[in-house]
Parts: sequence; structure tokens; C-alpha cells
Amino acid sequence: MIVAMQAEATEEQIQQVIERLIQTGFNVHRTTGSLQTILAGVGSPSRFDPKDFELLAGVGDVVRISAPYKLAGKSFRPEGTVVEFSNGVKVGGNQVVVMAGPCSVESREQILTSARQVKAAGAQFLRGGAFKPRSSPYSFQGMGLEGLKLLREVGDETGLLIVSEVMEISQIPVMMPYVDLFQVGARNMQNFNLLRELGVVKKPVLLKRGIAATIEELLLSAEYILSGGNYGVILCERGIRTFETYTRNTMDISAIPVIKKLSHLPILGDPSHGTGRREQVGPMARAAVAAGCDGLLIEVHPNPDKAFSDGAQSLFPEQFSQLMSELRLIATAVNRKMQ
Amino acid sequence: MIVAMQAEATEEQIQQVIERLIQTGFNVHRTTGSLQTILAGVGSPSRFDPKDFELLAGVGDVVRISAPYKLAGKSFRPEGTVVEFSNGVKVGGNQVVVMAGPCSVESREQILTSARQVKAAGAQFLRGGAFKPRSSPYSFQGMGLEGLKLLREVGDETGLLIVSEVMEISQIPVMMPYVDLFQVGARNMQNFNLLRELGVVKKPVLLKRGIAATIEELLLSAEYILSGGNYGVILCERGIRTFETYTRNTMDISAIPVIKKLSHLPILGDPSHGTGRREQVGPMARAAVAAGCDGLLIEVHPNPDKAFSDGAQSLFPEQFSQLMSELRLIATAVNRKMQ
Amino acid sequence: MIVAMQAEATEEQIQQVIERLIQTGFNVHRTTGSLQTILAGVGSPSRFDPKDFELLAGVGDVVRISAPYKLAGKSFRPEGTVVEFSNGVKVGGNQVVVMAGPCSVESREQILTSARQVKAAGAQFLRGGAFKPRSSPYSFQGMGLEGLKLLREVGDETGLLIVSEVMEISQIPVMMPYVDLFQVGARNMQNFNLLRELGVVKKPVLLKRGIAATIEELLLSAEYILSGGNYGVILCERGIRTFETYTRNTMDISAIPVIKKLSHLPILGDPSHGTGRREQVGPMARAAVAAGCDGLLIEVHPNPDKAFSDGAQSLFPEQFSQLMSELRLIATAVNRKMQ
Amino acid sequence: MIVAMQAEATEEQIQQVIERLIQTGFNVHRTTGSLQTILAGVGSPSRFDPKDFELLAGVGDVVRISAPYKLAGKSFRPEGTVVEFSNGVKVGGNQVVVMAGPCSVESREQILTSARQVKAAGAQFLRGGAFKPRSSPYSFQGMGLEGLKLLREVGDETGLLIVSEVMEISQIPVMMPYVDLFQVGARNMQNFNLLRELGVVKKPVLLKRGIAATIEELLLSAEYILSGGNYGVILCERGIRTFETYTRNTMDISAIPVIKKLSHLPILGDPSHGTGRREQVGPMARAAVAAGCDGLLIEVHPNPDKAFSDGAQSLFPEQFSQLMSELRLIATAVNRKMQ
Repeated sequence: MIVAMQAEATEEQIQQVIERLIQTGFNVHRTTGSLQTILAGVGSPSRFDPKDFELLAGVGDVVRISAPYKLAGKSFRPEGTVVEFSNGVKVGGNQVVVMAGPCSVESREQILTSARQVKAAGAQFLRGGAFKPRSSPYSFQGMGLEGLKLLREVGDETGLLIVSEVMEISQIPVMMPYVDLFQVGARNMQNFNLLRELGVVKKPVLLKRGIAATIEELLLSAEYILSGGNYGVILCERGIRTFETYTRNTMDISAIPVIKKLSHLPILGDPSHGTGRREQVGPMARAAVAAGCDGLLIEVHPNPDKAFSDGAQSLFPEQFSQLMSELRLIATAVNRKMQ
Repeated sequence: MIVAMQAEATEEQIQQVIERLIQTGFNVHRTTGSLQTILAGVGSPSRFDPKDFELLAGVGDVVRISAPYKLAGKSFRPEGTVVEFSNGVKVGGNQVVVMAGPCSVESREQILTSARQVKAAGAQFLRGGAFKPRSSPYSFQGMGLEGLKLLREVGDETGLLIVSEVMEISQIPVMMPYVDLFQVGARNMQNFNLLRELGVVKKPVLLKRGIAATIEELLLSAEYILSGGNYGVILCERGIRTFETYTRNTMDISAIPVIKKLSHLPILGDPSHGTGRREQVGPMARAAVAAGCDGLLIEVHPNPDKAFSDGAQSLFPEQFSQLMSELRLIATAVNRKMQ
Repeated sequence: MIVAMQAEATEEQIQQVIERLIQTGFNVHRTTGSLQTILAGVGSPSRFDPKDFELLAGVGDVVRISAPYKLAGKSFRPEGTVVEFSNGVKVGGNQVVVMAGPCSVESREQILTSARQVKAAGAQFLRGGAFKPRSSPYSFQGMGLEGLKLLREVGDETGLLIVSEVMEISQIPVMMPYVDLFQVGARNMQNFNLLRELGVVKKPVLLKRGIAATIEELLLSAEYILSGGNYGVILCERGIRTFETYTRNTMDISAIPVIKKLSHLPILGDPSHGTGRREQVGPMARAAVAAGCDGLLIEVHPNPDKAFSDGAQSLFPEQFSQLMSELRLIATAVNRKMQ
Repeated sequence: MIVAMQAEATEEQIQQVIERLIQTGFNVHRTTGSLQTILAGVGSPSRFDPKDFELLAGVGDVVRISAPYKLAGKSFRPEGTVVEFSNGVKVGGNQVVVMAGPCSVESREQILTSARQVKAAGAQFLRGGAFKPRSSPYSFQGMGLEGLKLLREVGDETGLLIVSEVMEISQIPVMMPYVDLFQVGARNMQNFNLLRELGVVKKPVLLKRGIAATIEELLLSAEYILSGGNYGVILCERGIRTFETYTRNTMDISAIPVIKKLSHLPILGDPSHGTGRREQVGPMARAAVAAGCDGLLIEVHPNPDKAFSDGAQSLFPEQFSQLMSELRLIATAVNRKMQ
């Protein structure tokens, strides 16, 4: 951490800041220039808030130098993390994987049809919500355990891996037997108690970026899971909230190459939630692959017009199949493989 | 809901939209202009997504007319909600109430000293975190149950009501005997399972606005609690995330008069989290009262430089006492009372 | 425009709104439901503000139905606009065009070297600033007329078209002999006087989206130019301001397919300004082409480390050449051509 | 400026960065820690971009220490700037001044009536637009020179100072004889050519914050004017663009105390543009005064329902008069005076 003193800071003020830095656990290196004194706090104390220093007398500016995450940072594993699943599917390697399916599990027939359709088009994971967090108390809230059982059954039948959203700690043991990948939704990205519990689970976690979360905050949330010992973390960009209202969110495609630079964790794109409009899903899926993502989450429904939730952003099966063909060409253009 | 057809929509397309509106539960009124046809869906079906209509053939624009919340809306209780506590303190009436105290409970001495100081300055509630959601896994995580007991003990000793944050469903019964007001933090504003459980609890809830939540979304979250039968909901503005980086968040003072217009629920301001900087707390507290808020949440610590968390935004006790004097003058200027 | 009256609106209030709608130039269609009355204003008066209606007594909600732009809208020219230049280069057709070069013209040698390098790599336009709007008064402000002459000379020598930024009305005649395409920067996107003058000029205009401008506002700014009779308008997405600070701006790739849907005008992407970091330019350029843009603006400098401005986001010539190869593969994958 | 090298940076890389810092004009102080090397560039070179250093090999993080503005900074004039006008009115002193009037000058009668009304209520300045920048080319564009003459005439008759918006350099000499204070609108906050010209004018300038401008950028724009020798700069907060859509902009009240801390320049609040809704003007005007602003800009129209522009945010004369009474109470509560 760097503390730049004000030009007019007194020696006494400088000494107080030095003392505080040492108390916090830093070694201090002092640079006295003609204009101002600069103090460099070297080391990595586990608990401090740079703002505590901003308010000390004589302090001009305070800057944290090192990233607040360690295990999620690129230097922890420069070769990159590859998350491998029971059937050999790998996320984070050369292949671009696709997780597809309806927003919610609605019935056995709906989810089975979905599974067959996305499998035929080349997806490796079936997605589907059993517990549905909806912003209106008057909306459909999901099938719960029954939905999980249907997902597992259909996954086994079609050879698809299952990813579904976990919304609270009590659902972890309930979901454990049925899913291959726990999904943490954008609203829970900073539910730190949930993240901590997922850190000690023996299954990979798909962590979605919150709509108001910076990339640094996403990596810090990943750190919670990693620090518990669960290294199977997959990140996902799904749109941030901006002033633009035409799209539901603004899908931040640039987060993909940025995360590739800052972290070793795989990063997916979710163009369905990222745009909220079916017609934008294709172009944004193509853009995500072109920008270097390791995979995609895409909502597909056998009959979007009748979907219980998110119908407007779900692709028709034939649209999904067509999109997969286009994505293979893009993947090839960026030296990646796709099934 | 209004569906404006494109100028070039065919009669067949218009009929399909009409049919879909009727299926959804609307009565349909049709206006055929020289330029375009406009369909008004009248009624209030419980489950529909306006975007489902946007994608139908021939549709130009779709607009939801009525607010998606009912119980939280002004018209449900035009006279305004007043939440009354066991000792007679009322939130939402003529008085501007103040909830003050440290970010976290750190020790018996710290919380007792805090309580006496804020009580002496005129606060009615003691705030203090027992369970602390921190964005870094390496930070102090709170005293838990021990902290709750200290809060209650100190509240009883000083005559202050207790408000503390609940972070997950399992903490509700744990906290029940110790707090007078459950606080739902910004990160949990859309933790709908938690909100639903708080809807059936017999204690009031302080619901803070999420940093990326619109005012409409805040009211919809309040609706979750209200729809369970718990009408003791108090809202709180505590800053939204914008591009400005000088302040931690941008405290949206305009949310106060807007919520006063749209809803009957009391609205507080939290200038400590709203700004993240001690020096801004005073001006923003004054602004919130001038804009018509029903109360304030303010972080005060007996020794902010030694605080385990949020020290940089906590007031020194004498600053708080001085601020309370200033606030009384502002309250009087807007025809409100303050203790 | 739709005016939804409040449930409790009186007949007198309804009549006042109807009267006001008629005065404004609308024909009014009235729908009286059991819950509320809805008034549809049909027609397109040239001057009105929907908010004027929101404040009338008894009004619940007001919604503008038709887009406020006409000439920039898709339906004005559904087949799409192709802007053709003197040497036959077309923007908006099947080919993805590239405009490349340094941020500023710095010297004859620098701009000639740049031109040869970008030409060799496949660019059709040479970009370079002669008048430089810089946020610090202490920064380099451009070569002015001398820079324009160098651009023209070098453009003629290499067969590249010239695009350069116009910052105020008085520069239009000065630049006229030297540029093939006037660029309007993000900061001037709502400089309506400038736009109006460019509407009567006989040269195409490249209009960049402002960092806080919605897509609708960009199209409305295009409308200013189009309404003067200049139909050679090319749009450009170059990043919007969001809360994310790692990138200078957040390049809104989704604006590309959205504009393709709403408008007939060609849309380019500018990954250099969109990200502000050299290492992100490649991935975002690929993403823009994959999302369907008609071209790219890319900053390239013979020696970025010595650039007078924007060095950090400028590509080295060999990086640009490599990127062009990658882009050709992406263009092919989306059925477009690239030189 | 601070350059923190990566832990794995080589000595050669460190030497290259040191060399580059020296070339740029810095003196370099080096701190070699056990984990990493930190280089402090001391001095204030006039032209450099911190991002140029970020991309050098081995560099971990780069941080600018000193604010990029000098003349606008608090330390340049710690006692604060007071801008005095010909009739003795002072902005930036103990008094809270009010500038009020219609959005546009529409006719002699309209502006004279407005002037008398705002004067009677206690305003010191008459505001009114002669040149109107409108986002739709089909809207009313202002009366131009004729409007300026009416403003001057009416100002002289009523004893009000005149403030009106200048939109481009060519309007400066045209406006010079008629206005007491040049207003630079939010859209022109970064029109640096215009700012530079206003820096050599002998009249004060009211500089409004752009809707996507940080406080630092506002101060940097002020620097342009100050650096030309015009020290009569008054700043104005008028709302920033955020994701919230209920209000047109989010008025950033916290900018008021922040600017009071960072700069010596007076700061006003504009609740009319800050909210875009008449009903919010009062609460936000009160909040701005409570937060410490030096004055207010408020739109008032003799007949808002008939206003040519911005009617929905203009107060009725009696509302304005009532608001002024309320504001006097708030001003007193914060130890300020109001006429």
C-alpha cells in the first residue's frame, strides 16, 4: 500500500502514519521528495482497510497496490485451471463447452425434450432451474426437489451433465445427489456464507457475476470458494447494469479477456441473461466466443412462447441448433474446438 | 398493458396478439388508428412477462401500465405506515428517528460505551452487526450469537431498541429474542427466500436498497415481506453504484421523495454506507432530513481508528453529538421533530 | 402516445387530458375499462414532451409509443444504407472495412509510416487526429491544419481514404478539402449545432456514441444530420461509462446487433477507445466482427511507446497485422468479407 | 506517480521503467521490498499518461498520486473563491444565491413576468435560454439574439443579473453585451475549445457537470478556464446518468461536500435538471442547501403547462415562492443567509 502525504504534512503527521502502518503489519519504506513524502507499506497484512489511512492527518492519497485476492489471481496458477467432470468433459481447456436448457424445469416432458434437443445440437450440460428466485412474489417459484430429480434422470438418460442454481445453504445437501455443477446466481455472488459452504463441497461451482459487481469483486467472491479448498470454480459474465435500457443488462464482453488476464479460472458467457432478448442471443454468443470465453450458458426451450419464465430470452430449438453451427466456425477461427 | 402494433402489421398478426392477451388473462380493447393499431390489455393477471409480447410478429412496442407491486404502493395505504415499537417509538410519523452505533459488535465495553454515547446524543435505536458479511474472506466476520446477547443486554440497560442484520433464514430464530428490528442488507435485498420468511415473522424489518436496485425493485422486494402479512416494513436508501469513484457509492437522495410519492412505507437514509467517508456523513445526513426522510442510520464508534470494520466511515462520538444538534435544526425547518 | 389514467381519475380530469392531447396535435382514442381509462394519442405531432402529460391531474402513466427518430429508423430504408466513397470503397455492404492509424498526426514521417503499415495490413481508411480535444489543458493539442495536409498527402500517396475528427463548426470548411469522412467524437455527439451543419455538407459523417448516450440518443443525433439531407451517416460504438474501472469504458458490443435491428445505418466498433488498453483491442475487435459490425476503428502507431497521445491503447504495427489475419477468419465465419 | 513492479520483474525491466520515468520528467525513488520493487516518480511533468507505464514489461500497477488539476484544487486558494458581480451580489460567500427563470425565453411578456415573479420571491439572477440545444431536431431551438436582448432589458428593469447558456465559440462575442454570467451546459463540459475561449473572457462562467463526468473531470474542465486567467468560475451539480429510470438523472448531492473539500470554487445545485420532475424540485433544493451548496438554479415558468420546453420540471411561480420560504429556514439551520 502507498500513502502519499500532503505537501504540507508535518513530520509529526508522517510519523503517526508510519506508526499506524507498522501496527497494521506493514514494513515501511519512506521516500522524501522535494514536494512530498511518500510511504510504501510493504507486506500483506490480512486485515486492513485503505480508507482508514485516508482520514489520518496529513495524508493526501492512499493506494492499495496488490490485488486483494490471492488464490484467484493468475500468478497462483499461470497455466490456467481446467475443471474436469465425471464423464471427462473439461471446462477451461481448448474446448468451448455449452450449457443449455430451459430457465425452469416445468415437467418431465419439457425437460426431457429440452435435453434431447440441446444434446443433439452439441451441448455438454443441461441447465434448468429447480429453485427459482423471482423478483415478483406472484411469479412461478420452481418445482424444487421434484425438478432436481427430473434433471438427474434426464441427464443420465441423455448423457448430459447437470447444472442448476443453489440459492441457500440448506439447498446444498438437497442438491448434492442430483447436480454435477452448482450454479451461484448473480444475486448471490456476494452471499458470503453460501460461498463459504460451497468452498468445502466436493463439486465444482459456476459463479455468476453480480449485475453491479466489478471484476475484482467477482474474483474476490471466487476467493471465498477457493479458500475453502474447492478449486473447481468456473466464472460467468452475464451482464451488468448500466444506463442503457434497450437491453435488460449490458453484457460486458470485455470482462472475458480481462479475466483471462487477471485469473486462471475458466470464464463463460451467458448471452441469454446478458441481453434478455432472444434476437440478441446469437450475436452476443458469437462475440463471447470470439473474445475468448471457455463456454456459454444459453437458454433454450421447446416452446418459448409457453415457458413459465424467461420465455422472451429463450431460443427455439432450431435457433439453438443453427447458432451452434455458427459458433463452431467462430471457435475454429480463434483456434478453439467445439463439439 | 399496452401493445402497439407496427404500422405494417397484418390483421392476422393483430388477431394472434389479441388471442395471446386473452390467454394471459387480459380483457382487450382495440384502437385502430390511421397509422397503427393499439391494443390495451386491461385487468391484472398474476403471471406474465411483457417481453413475451415484444417478440410476437407485428408487435412494435409493449408497455406495462400498472406498477408490479400492490401492497407496497401508495394507494394501498395513502395515509402512510407508522411502525410502532414496544417502547412507543414510532417510525414513519412526525418524528425523525436515529439508529446509531458501530458497524460491528466487538466487545461488551465497546458496545456499551457506544450505546451510552448515542443514547445521550438522542438516538432511539442501537445498531451493531453480529453477523458480518465481508467481501474479503480474510476479514473479521463478526461475534455471532455472543454479539446479539451483548446488544440486547446493552439495549435494555440504556433503553435503546436493537437493530441488527439478518443474513440468512437460519439466523431468524437465533436473532428473534435479541432484536427489535431485523435489518436486511443491500446484498440480500433480492434474497427472496429470506424475504418470504421475514414476511411471517412478528417483528418489523428494515429493508435496505441494493446498490444496483431501482426504486421499483426495492418496492417489489418490500412486497415479498408485506405479502406474507408482515406490514412492519421500513425502507432505507444507502447509496447506489455509479461511475463516480470518489465516494464509495452515490447516495441517491432523490429516492427519498420518490418513495414518499410511490409508497406508504417509511424511508430512512444511511449516509455512512451511502458515502463511505466520515467527512461526508454530516452533509448527507442533513440533506436526507431536508429531503424528507423518516430517520437515519449512522455509524458511530467510540474509537473509529481502532474499529474492526468500517472505521473510515464511522463518526467519533463528539462528531455524532454535534451532528444531532445540526439535524434538529433541519428537522424543525421541514416541520419534523427530533429527539 | 398512451396516457393511462389513475383508477380514481374523475371524468373531468379525463376530459382535460383529452383536450390537451388534441391541442398537442393528437387524435384521441379512449378505452374505458372497469379499472381505469386509457387514452391513446394517435398521430405524430412534431413538438411535445411526454412528461408534460405526467403531471396533469388524474394521470397515472404516460408512454411514448413511436420512436422519436424517423429518418434513422429501420423502416425508412429497410434494405440498409451503404455509404460509398470516391474510390469505390463501401461501408455498410458485405465487406467489413477497417479504419486505422495513430491517435494524432505527429509528423510527416510518423503518419506516412503509419499509412504504409495499415495499408499493407488491409485497412481502407487512415485515421489520425489533427485537432485533439484533450481533457487536460496541459496535454498536446494537435497539429491542426498542418496535420490535415499531411493526412491528405499521405492518403493520396498510399490510396487510403482519410477520416479525421471535426470539433467545431468553424473547422468544417478548413477540413473539407482534406478529409473523405468527418468524424464526430463522443463528446460532440450532442453538439446539435455541429450536427446540423454537417447535415448540409456533401461528405459522409462518422458519428461516435457518447459515453453516456443511449442507443436511442445516438439515433436521434444521427437524425439531426439526416434531416439536413446528408444521408452518409456511419455510426460507431466506442464504449460507455459504467461502474467497472478496470477498462476505461465498457464497450457495449450488444449495441451492434441492436442498431442493426433499429436502424439502416452502418455501425462500426472502436475497440481502442472502447477498452483503453492495447491487450484488450484484439479480443474486442474480434467480438465486434462476430457480433455483426460493418467495420472497425483501430489505433495503430509505428512506435506506441513514443506516441504523443493514447499510446497505451495503440497497437504495434505487427500486432495490427496479426489481428487483421484473425479478423478475416471471423469475418468469413459470419459470412462477411474483409480485404 | 507510483509504479509497483511485479514480484517476478527482472532487474533489467526495473531499469527500463526507471529510464522511462526519468525521460518523462520524474525524479525516481526506488523501494526494494522482499516481495516487490516499488518506484516513486516524484515531480510534476506536464505531459504523461499513467497507462503508458502499465504496459511496460514487468509492471504490476501504476498509480497517479497527485490530482491532475492545480488551479482548481483547494490548496491553490484555501480560503475559497468568491465571485462578485457588478451589483455587489457574491457567489461563494455566506449567502446562498438563487438563479431562477424559464428554460427558454419565449416572448417579452413571458420573460418579464418570470423576472418579476422570481425577483419578488428572492432570486438574484434571471436564467433563460436564448440558444437551446435540444436532442430532437424537431423541437423548439430558441429565440437567439432576440432572446438575449429581452433578457438584458428585463434584467435591467428588475435589477436581476442575467445568466444564459453559451453553446459555441461564435456565440461568445454575441452574448457578451447581454449576460452577466456565461453558462456552459452539461453537454459542453468537455468542449475544450469553448472552455479555452471562456478562459480569456472578462466575465464569470457557470460550469455544469456533464451527466457522465466524474468530479475530477469537472475540476479538470474548470482548470481549462482558470488556466486562461479567468478565475470567476462557478460549478454546478445537475444530475448524473445512472441505471435508475424514475428520475431523468440522479442528482449527486454528495458532489457538493466533495467539491467543497477538493476545490475552492463555489458549487451550485440544479434540482430542476437534476430530477426532471417538478414534484422533486423542492425536496432536492432543500437537500442541496442542507448539504452546503452556495446557490441554486431553478426553473420557474409563469405557466409551465404552456412552456415551449422543460415544462414538466418548471415550478409554478407560487410553488417557487413557497420553496424560497422553506429554503430560508434550511439556510439558517446551516448558518447561511438567503435573500
